[in-house]
Amino acid sequence: MSQVRVHNFSISLDGFGTGEGLTVDAPFGHAGQRLHEWMLATRRGKELFGEPGGSLGVDDAFAQRYTLGIGAEIMGRGKFTPQTGPWTDLGTDDEWRGWWGPNPPFHTPVFVLTHHPRPSIEMEGGTVFHFVDATEHEVLALAREAAGDLDVQVGGGPTTVRNFLAARLIDLLHVVVVPIVLGRGVRLWDGLEGIEDDYDVETVSAPSGVTHLTFTRRT
Amino acid sequence: MSQVRVHNFSISLDGFGTGEGLTVDAPFGHAGQRLHEWMLATRRGKELFGEPGGSLGVDDAFAQRYTLGIGAEIMGRGKFTPQTGPWTDLGTDDEWRGWWGPNPPFHTPVFVLTHHPRPSIEMEGGTVFHFVDATEHEVLALAREAAGDLDVQVGGGPTTVRNFLAARLIDLLHVVVVPIVLGRGVRLWDGLEGIEDDYDVETVSAPSGVTHLTFTRRT
Repeated sequence: MSQVRVHNFSISLDGFGTGEGLTVDAPFGHAGQRLHEWMLATRRGKELFGEPGGSLGVDDAFAQRYTLGIGAEIMGRGKFTPQTGPWTDLGTDDEWRGWWGPNPPFHTPVFVLTHHPRPSIEMEGGTVFHFVDATEHEVLALAREAAGDLDVQVGGGPTTVRNFLAARLIDLLHVVVVPIVLGRGVRLWDGLEGIEDDYDVETVSAPSGVTHLTFTRRT
Repeated sequence: MSQVRVHNFSISLDGFGTGEGLTVDAPFGHAGQRLHEWMLATRRGKELFGEPGGSLGVDDAFAQRYTLGIGAEIMGRGKFTPQTGPWTDLGTDDEWRGWWGPNPPFHTPVFVLTHHPRPSIEMEGGTVFHFVDATEHEVLALAREAAGDLDVQVGGGPTTVRNFLAARLIDLLHVVVVPIVLGRGVRLWDGLEGIEDDYDVETVSAPSGVTHLTFTRRT
Protein backbone atom coordinates (compact mmCIF):
# COMPACT_ATOMS: atom_id res chain seq x y z
CA MET A 1 0.00 0.00 0.00
CA SER A 2 1.12 3.54 -0.65
CA GLN A 3 2.64 5.48 2.24
CA VAL A 4 1.53 8.55 4.10
CA ARG A 5 4.45 10.94 4.40
CA VAL A 6 5.33 14.22 6.06
CA HIS A 7 8.38 16.08 4.73
CA ASN A 8 10.35 19.17 5.69
CA PHE A 9 8.15 19.82 8.69
CA SER A 10 10.14 22.46 10.51
CA ILE A 11 9.76 23.26 14.18
CA SER A 12 11.54 25.47 16.66
CA LEU A 13 13.48 24.13 19.66
CA ASP A 14 10.36 24.74 21.72
CA GLY A 15 8.29 22.70 19.29
CA PHE A 16 6.33 25.35 17.40
CA GLY A 17 5.51 24.53 13.76
CA THR A 18 4.19 27.98 13.07
CA GLY A 19 4.25 31.31 14.85
CA GLU A 20 1.53 33.56 16.15
CA GLY A 21 -0.43 36.09 14.10
CA LEU A 22 -0.90 34.48 10.68
CA THR A 23 -1.81 36.98 7.96
CA VAL A 24 -1.75 37.17 4.15
CA ASP A 25 1.70 38.74 4.40
CA ALA A 26 2.97 36.43 7.15
CA PRO A 27 1.85 32.84 6.51
CA PHE A 28 3.92 31.68 9.51
CA GLY A 29 3.10 34.67 11.70
CA HIS A 30 5.93 36.11 13.79
CA ALA A 31 8.14 33.14 12.81
CA GLY A 32 8.58 34.78 9.41
CA GLN A 33 10.78 32.58 7.21
CA ARG A 34 13.01 31.47 10.07
CA LEU A 35 11.66 27.93 10.18
CA HIS A 36 12.31 27.41 6.48
CA GLU A 37 15.51 29.30 5.71
CA TRP A 38 17.38 25.97 5.64
CA MET A 39 15.12 24.75 2.82
CA LEU A 40 14.99 28.01 0.89
CA ALA A 41 18.80 27.87 0.68
CA THR A 42 18.82 24.47 -1.04
CA ARG A 43 18.68 23.76 -4.76
CA ARG A 44 15.22 22.22 -4.32
CA GLY A 45 14.04 25.21 -2.32
CA LYS A 46 15.24 27.66 -4.96
CA GLU A 47 13.79 25.54 -7.74
CA LEU A 48 10.36 25.74 -6.09
CA PHE A 49 10.51 29.50 -6.54
CA GLY A 50 12.05 29.40 -10.02
CA GLU A 51 15.49 30.48 -8.83
CA PRO A 52 18.87 29.02 -9.84
CA GLY A 53 21.61 27.75 -7.54
CA GLY A 54 21.23 26.53 -4.00
CA SER A 55 23.12 24.23 -1.64
CA LEU A 56 23.61 20.55 -2.48
CA GLY A 57 24.34 18.95 0.89
CA VAL A 58 22.23 17.06 3.38
CA ASP A 59 19.54 19.77 3.57
CA ASP A 60 19.00 19.49 -0.18
CA ALA A 61 19.00 15.69 -0.03
CA PHE A 62 16.08 15.85 2.37
CA ALA A 63 14.33 18.69 0.54
CA GLN A 64 14.47 16.83 -2.78
CA ARG A 65 12.23 14.10 -1.42
CA TYR A 66 9.49 16.60 -0.66
CA THR A 67 7.26 15.93 -3.69
CA LEU A 68 8.99 12.79 -4.97
CA GLY A 69 6.49 10.00 -5.59
CA ILE A 70 3.62 11.98 -4.09
CA GLY A 71 0.24 11.65 -5.80
CA ALA A 72 -1.91 13.79 -3.51
CA GLU A 73 -1.54 16.21 -0.61
CA ILE A 74 -3.67 16.81 2.45
CA MET A 75 -3.40 20.13 4.24
CA GLY A 76 -5.21 21.99 6.98
CA ARG A 77 -7.06 25.11 5.98
CA GLY A 78 -4.50 27.18 7.91
CA LYS A 79 -1.84 26.18 5.39
CA PHE A 80 -4.04 27.39 2.52
CA THR A 81 -5.27 30.66 4.00
CA PRO A 82 -4.97 32.79 7.15
CA GLN A 83 -8.76 33.16 7.07
CA THR A 84 -11.05 31.21 9.40
CA GLY A 85 -14.84 30.82 9.38
CA PRO A 86 -16.99 31.26 6.24
CA TRP A 87 -15.03 32.08 3.09
CA THR A 88 -15.01 35.74 2.11
CA ASP A 89 -12.88 37.84 -0.16
CA LEU A 90 -9.47 38.54 1.38
CA GLY A 91 -9.24 41.96 -0.24
CA THR A 92 -6.91 40.73 -2.95
CA ASP A 93 -7.60 41.33 -6.66
CA ASP A 94 -8.98 37.87 -7.14
CA GLU A 95 -10.46 35.03 -5.16
CA TRP A 96 -7.82 33.70 -2.72
CA ARG A 97 -5.92 30.77 -4.22
CA GLY A 98 -3.24 30.17 -1.61
CA TRP A 99 0.22 31.64 -1.17
CA TRP A 100 1.85 29.91 -4.09
CA GLY A 101 0.85 31.90 -7.19
CA PRO A 102 -0.84 30.52 -10.31
CA ASN A 103 1.36 27.40 -10.49
CA PRO A 104 1.66 25.92 -6.96
CA PRO A 105 4.46 23.45 -6.18
CA PHE A 106 2.11 20.51 -5.55
CA HIS A 107 1.16 19.46 -9.13
CA THR A 108 -1.37 16.97 -7.71
CA PRO A 109 -4.82 17.04 -6.16
CA VAL A 110 -4.66 18.84 -2.80
CA PHE A 111 -7.32 18.17 -0.17
CA VAL A 112 -7.85 21.17 2.10
CA LEU A 113 -9.58 20.28 5.37
CA THR A 114 -12.23 22.83 6.25
CA HIS A 115 -15.58 22.93 8.01
CA HIS A 116 -16.72 25.19 5.15
CA PRO A 117 -16.62 23.17 1.90
CA ARG A 118 -16.57 25.12 -1.37
CA PRO A 119 -16.05 24.34 -5.07
CA SER A 120 -12.67 23.00 -6.15
CA ILE A 121 -10.10 25.33 -7.70
CA GLU A 122 -8.00 24.14 -10.63
CA MET A 123 -4.58 25.75 -10.92
CA GLU A 124 -1.84 25.58 -13.51
CA GLY A 125 0.60 22.66 -13.44
CA GLY A 126 -1.80 19.99 -12.22
CA THR A 127 -2.64 21.32 -8.75
CA VAL A 128 -6.35 21.12 -7.92
CA PHE A 129 -7.52 22.32 -4.51
CA HIS A 130 -10.46 20.36 -3.12
CA PHE A 131 -12.16 21.60 0.04
CA VAL A 132 -13.55 18.87 2.25
CA ASP A 133 -15.12 18.59 5.68
CA ALA A 134 -13.92 15.15 6.73
CA THR A 135 -12.12 13.14 9.41
CA GLU A 136 -8.47 12.16 9.00
CA HIS A 137 -9.49 8.66 7.86
CA GLU A 138 -12.07 9.98 5.41
CA VAL A 139 -9.83 12.53 3.74
CA LEU A 140 -7.01 9.99 3.57
CA ALA A 141 -9.31 7.60 1.68
CA LEU A 142 -10.05 10.38 -0.82
CA ALA A 143 -6.37 11.26 -1.15
CA ARG A 144 -5.29 7.63 -1.58
CA GLU A 145 -7.83 7.19 -4.36
CA ALA A 146 -6.60 10.35 -6.07
CA ALA A 147 -2.95 9.32 -5.64
CA GLY A 148 -3.31 5.90 -7.26
CA ASP A 149 -0.08 3.98 -6.72
CA LEU A 150 1.74 7.04 -5.42
CA ASP A 151 2.12 8.19 -1.82
CA VAL A 152 0.06 10.77 0.04
CA GLN A 153 1.71 13.76 1.66
CA VAL A 154 0.32 15.39 4.77
CA GLY A 155 1.57 18.91 4.25
CA GLY A 156 0.71 20.68 7.52
CA GLY A 157 0.15 22.83 9.40
CA PRO A 158 1.07 21.58 12.86
CA THR A 159 -2.49 20.86 13.93
CA THR A 160 -3.12 18.70 10.86
CA VAL A 161 0.15 16.77 11.20
CA ARG A 162 -0.51 16.28 14.91
CA ASN A 163 -4.01 14.96 14.25
CA PHE A 164 -2.72 12.47 11.66
CA LEU A 165 0.01 11.34 14.06
CA ALA A 166 -2.53 10.91 16.85
CA ALA A 167 -4.66 8.82 14.47
CA ARG A 168 -1.54 6.70 13.76
CA LEU A 169 -1.81 7.34 10.05
CA ILE A 170 1.71 8.65 9.30
CA ASP A 171 4.27 6.17 7.92
CA LEU A 172 7.16 8.59 7.45
CA LEU A 173 7.67 11.78 9.44
CA HIS A 174 10.56 14.06 8.53
CA VAL A 175 10.88 16.77 11.16
CA VAL A 176 13.47 19.52 11.04
CA VAL A 177 14.45 21.15 14.32
CA VAL A 178 15.61 24.73 13.81
CA PRO A 179 17.73 26.12 16.69
CA ILE A 180 15.49 29.06 17.53
CA VAL A 181 13.05 29.63 20.38
CA LEU A 182 9.76 30.94 18.95
CA GLY A 183 7.96 31.23 22.28
CA ARG A 184 4.43 31.20 20.81
CA GLY A 185 2.41 29.77 17.98
CA VAL A 186 1.12 26.26 17.34
CA ARG A 187 3.03 23.29 18.77
CA LEU A 188 3.51 20.02 16.90
CA TRP A 189 3.93 17.52 19.75
CA ASP A 190 1.03 18.35 22.08
CA GLY A 191 -0.89 15.23 23.06
CA LEU A 192 1.61 12.89 21.38
CA GLU A 193 3.43 11.54 24.47
CA GLY A 194 5.38 8.41 23.60
CA ILE A 195 4.76 8.69 19.84
CA GLU A 196 8.40 7.64 19.27
CA ASP A 197 7.49 4.09 20.39
CA ASP A 198 5.76 3.57 17.03
CA TYR A 199 8.82 4.57 15.03
CA ASP A 200 12.46 4.01 14.32
CA VAL A 201 14.10 7.40 14.65
CA GLU A 202 17.23 8.57 12.84
CA THR A 203 18.87 11.91 13.60
CA VAL A 204 21.35 13.92 11.56
CA SER A 205 22.44 17.51 11.99
CA ALA A 206 23.35 19.70 9.03
CA PRO A 207 26.05 22.36 8.70
CA SER A 208 23.19 24.88 8.39
CA GLY A 209 22.47 24.25 12.07
CA VAL A 210 19.20 22.37 11.68
CA THR A 211 18.64 18.75 12.71
CA HIS A 212 16.77 16.31 10.51
CA LEU A 213 14.77 13.65 12.33
CA THR A 214 13.35 10.78 10.32
CA PHE A 215 10.59 8.79 12.00
CA THR A 216 9.90 5.55 10.11
CA ARG A 217 6.92 3.54 11.28
CA ARG A 218 7.86 0.17 12.72
CA THR A 219 6.30 -2.69 10.83
CA MET B 1 36.24 36.49 34.36
CA SER B 2 35.18 32.92 34.98
CA GLN B 3 32.30 31.55 32.94
CA VAL B 4 28.85 30.36 33.88
CA ARG B 5 28.19 27.04 32.18
CA VAL B 6 25.38 24.55 31.71
CA HIS B 7 26.33 21.04 30.57
CA ASN B 8 24.49 17.90 29.53
CA PHE B 9 21.12 19.55 29.97
CA SER B 10 18.84 17.03 28.31
CA ILE B 11 15.39 17.81 27.00
CA SER B 12 12.77 15.94 25.03
CA LEU B 13 11.66 16.94 21.53
CA ASP B 14 8.79 18.81 23.15
CA GLY B 15 11.21 20.70 25.38
CA PHE B 16 10.73 19.06 28.77
CA GLY B 17 13.82 18.94 31.00
CA THR B 18 12.13 16.72 33.54
CA GLY B 19 8.95 14.67 33.65
CA GLU B 20 5.92 14.79 35.90
CA GLY B 21 5.65 13.19 39.33
CA LEU B 22 9.08 13.57 40.94
CA THR B 23 9.64 11.22 43.86
CA VAL B 24 12.58 9.79 45.82
CA ASP B 25 12.56 6.81 43.48
CA ALA B 26 11.98 8.84 40.32
CA PRO B 27 14.07 12.03 40.34
CA PHE B 28 12.91 12.82 36.78
CA GLY B 29 9.33 11.64 37.26
CA HIS B 30 7.73 9.69 34.44
CA ALA B 31 10.74 10.51 32.22
CA GLY B 32 12.70 7.89 34.14
CA GLN B 33 16.26 7.71 32.80
CA ARG B 34 15.23 8.30 29.20
CA LEU B 35 16.63 11.84 29.06
CA HIS B 36 20.04 10.68 30.27
CA GLU B 37 20.56 7.25 28.73
CA TRP B 38 22.94 8.82 26.21
CA MET B 39 25.19 10.06 29.04
CA LEU B 40 24.94 6.95 31.20
CA ALA B 41 26.30 4.96 28.23
CA THR B 42 29.49 7.05 27.99
CA ARG B 43 32.79 6.46 29.77
CA ARG B 44 32.24 9.64 31.79
CA GLY B 45 28.71 8.59 32.68
CA LYS B 46 29.86 5.18 33.88
CA GLU B 47 32.79 6.70 35.75
CA LEU B 48 30.37 8.91 37.70
CA PHE B 49 28.76 5.75 39.05
CA GLY B 50 32.02 3.87 39.57
CA GLU B 51 31.50 1.58 36.59
CA PRO B 52 34.07 0.59 33.95
CA GLY B 53 33.73 0.87 30.17
CA GLY B 54 31.44 3.19 28.27
CA SER B 55 31.36 4.73 24.80
CA LEU B 56 34.12 7.08 23.65
CA GLY B 57 32.51 9.04 20.81
CA VAL B 58 30.92 12.45 20.58
CA ASP B 59 28.55 11.83 23.51
CA ASP B 60 31.52 11.12 25.78
CA ALA B 61 33.42 14.13 24.46
CA PHE B 62 30.58 16.34 25.61
CA ALA B 63 30.01 14.47 28.86
CA GLN B 64 33.69 14.74 29.83
CA ARG B 65 33.39 18.53 30.03
CA TYR B 66 30.67 18.29 32.65
CA THR B 67 32.77 19.00 35.74
CA LEU B 68 35.98 20.10 33.99
CA GLY B 69 37.24 23.41 35.40
CA ILE B 70 34.13 23.87 37.54
CA GLY B 71 34.69 25.38 41.00
CA ALA B 72 31.09 25.61 42.22
CA GLU B 73 27.62 24.47 41.24
CA ILE B 74 24.24 26.14 41.56
CA MET B 75 21.12 24.00 41.51
CA GLY B 76 17.44 24.41 42.16
CA ARG B 77 16.01 22.62 45.16
CA GLY B 78 14.13 20.29 42.81
CA LYS B 79 17.44 18.82 41.68
CA PHE B 80 18.42 18.11 45.29
CA THR B 81 15.14 16.69 46.57
CA PRO B 82 11.61 15.91 45.43
CA GLN B 83 10.37 17.61 48.59
CA THR B 84 8.89 21.11 48.58
CA GLY B 85 8.01 23.43 51.45
CA PRO B 86 9.64 23.19 54.92
CA TRP B 87 12.28 20.47 55.24
CA THR B 88 11.15 17.27 56.91
CA ASP B 89 12.46 13.76 57.05
CA LEU B 90 11.83 11.91 53.79
CA GLY B 91 11.37 8.58 55.54
CA THR B 92 14.87 7.41 54.68
CA ASP B 93 17.27 6.11 57.33
CA ASP B 94 19.08 9.37 57.56
CA GLU B 95 18.59 13.03 56.81
CA TRP B 96 18.12 13.46 53.03
CA ARG B 97 21.43 14.25 51.33
CA GLY B 98 20.45 14.16 47.69
CA TRP B 99 20.34 11.32 45.20
CA TRP B 100 24.06 10.84 44.81
CA GLY B 101 25.17 8.80 47.84
CA PRO B 102 27.88 9.76 50.34
CA ASN B 103 30.33 10.97 47.65
CA PRO B 104 28.39 13.10 45.13
CA PRO B 105 29.93 13.81 41.71
CA PHE B 106 30.30 17.56 42.28
CA HIS B 107 33.42 17.71 44.51
CA THR B 108 32.89 21.46 44.99
CA PRO B 109 30.59 23.76 46.94
CA VAL B 110 27.01 23.36 45.69
CA PHE B 111 24.53 26.16 46.25
CA VAL B 112 20.98 24.85 46.48
CA LEU B 113 18.35 27.53 45.88
CA THR B 114 15.51 27.25 48.38
CA HIS B 115 13.08 29.52 50.18
CA HIS B 116 13.83 27.44 53.28
CA PRO B 117 17.51 27.89 54.22
CA ARG B 118 19.07 25.25 56.47
CA PRO B 119 22.57 24.39 57.72
CA SER B 120 25.12 23.29 55.14
CA ILE B 121 25.86 19.58 54.65
CA GLU B 122 29.42 18.43 54.09
CA MET B 123 29.80 15.27 52.05
CA GLU B 124 32.76 13.07 51.14
CA GLY B 125 34.96 14.08 48.23
CA GLY B 126 34.71 17.84 48.63
CA THR B 127 31.01 18.39 47.96
CA VAL B 128 29.38 20.81 50.42
CA PHE B 129 25.69 21.60 49.99
CA HIS B 130 24.77 25.16 50.96
CA PHE B 131 21.11 26.14 51.11
CA VAL B 132 20.41 29.74 50.17
CA ASP B 133 17.37 31.91 49.58
CA ALA B 134 18.73 34.29 46.96
CA THR B 135 18.20 35.79 43.50
CA GLU B 136 20.11 34.47 40.50
CA HIS B 137 22.59 37.37 40.74
CA GLU B 138 23.07 36.92 44.48
CA VAL B 139 23.71 33.19 44.39
CA LEU B 140 26.00 33.60 41.40
CA ALA B 141 28.12 36.07 43.41
CA LEU B 142 28.40 33.49 46.19
CA ALA B 143 29.27 30.73 43.74
CA ARG B 144 31.86 32.84 41.91
CA GLU B 145 33.56 33.64 45.18
CA ALA B 146 33.60 29.95 46.13
CA ALA B 147 34.87 28.95 42.67
CA GLY B 148 37.87 31.26 42.68
CA ASP B 149 39.41 31.24 39.20
CA LEU B 150 37.27 28.31 38.10
CA ASP B 151 33.92 28.38 36.32
CA VAL B 152 30.45 28.07 37.84
CA GLN B 153 28.06 25.40 36.68
CA VAL B 154 24.31 25.88 36.72
CA GLY B 155 23.21 22.31 37.14
CA GLY B 156 19.43 22.47 36.73
CA GLY B 157 16.61 21.69 36.93
CA PRO B 158 14.81 23.31 34.02
CA THR B 159 13.31 26.13 36.07
CA THR B 160 16.71 27.14 37.43
CA VAL B 161 18.41 27.00 34.02
CA ARG B 162 15.54 28.96 32.50
CA ASN B 163 15.75 31.64 35.18
CA PHE B 164 19.51 32.05 34.67
CA LEU B 165 19.01 32.25 30.89
CA ALA B 166 16.27 34.86 31.35
CA ALA B 167 18.67 36.85 33.57
CA ARG B 168 21.26 36.60 30.75
CA LEU B 169 23.80 35.03 33.08
CA ILE B 170 24.72 31.89 31.10
CA ASP B 171 27.89 32.00 28.97
CA LEU B 172 27.81 28.42 27.70
CA LEU B 173 24.68 26.32 27.32
CA HIS B 174 25.02 22.70 26.24
CA VAL B 175 21.58 21.29 25.52
CA VAL B 176 20.96 17.72 24.43
CA VAL B 177 17.77 17.00 22.51
CA VAL B 178 16.60 13.42 23.02
CA PRO B 179 14.20 12.16 20.33
CA ILE B 180 11.30 11.32 22.64
CA VAL B 181 8.02 13.11 23.31
CA LEU B 182 7.50 13.39 27.07
CA GLY B 183 4.18 15.19 26.91
CA ARG B 184 4.34 16.61 30.44
CA GLY B 185 6.77 17.89 33.01
CA VAL B 186 8.77 21.11 33.22
CA ARG B 187 9.76 22.88 30.01
CA LEU B 188 13.13 24.55 29.51
CA TRP B 189 12.32 27.20 26.89
CA ASP B 190 9.19 28.87 28.28
CA GLY B 191 9.51 32.66 28.29
CA LEU B 192 12.83 32.60 26.39
CA GLU B 193 11.62 33.70 22.94
CA GLY B 194 14.55 34.82 20.79
CA ILE B 195 17.21 33.68 23.31
CA GLU B 196 19.28 32.39 20.37
CA ASP B 197 20.02 35.99 19.35
CA ASP B 198 22.47 36.22 22.27
CA TYR B 199 24.42 33.14 21.19
CA ASP B 200 26.34 31.43 18.46
CA VAL B 201 24.74 28.02 18.12
CA GLU B 202 26.47 24.85 16.94
CA THR B 203 24.57 21.63 16.34
CA VAL B 204 25.83 18.07 16.07
CA SER B 205 23.91 14.82 16.16
CA ALA B 206 25.35 11.66 17.68
CA PRO B 207 24.97 8.03 16.57
CA SER B 208 23.05 7.49 19.83
CA GLY B 209 20.26 9.58 18.31
CA VAL B 210 20.61 12.66 20.50
CA THR B 211 21.55 16.10 19.22
CA HIS B 212 24.06 18.29 21.02
CA LEU B 213 23.44 22.04 20.82
CA THR B 214 26.17 24.37 22.03
CA PHE B 215 25.09 27.93 22.74
CA THR B 216 28.13 30.20 23.16
CA ARG B 217 27.38 33.74 24.28
CA ARG B 218 28.32 36.35 21.68
CA THR B 219 30.86 38.81 22.95
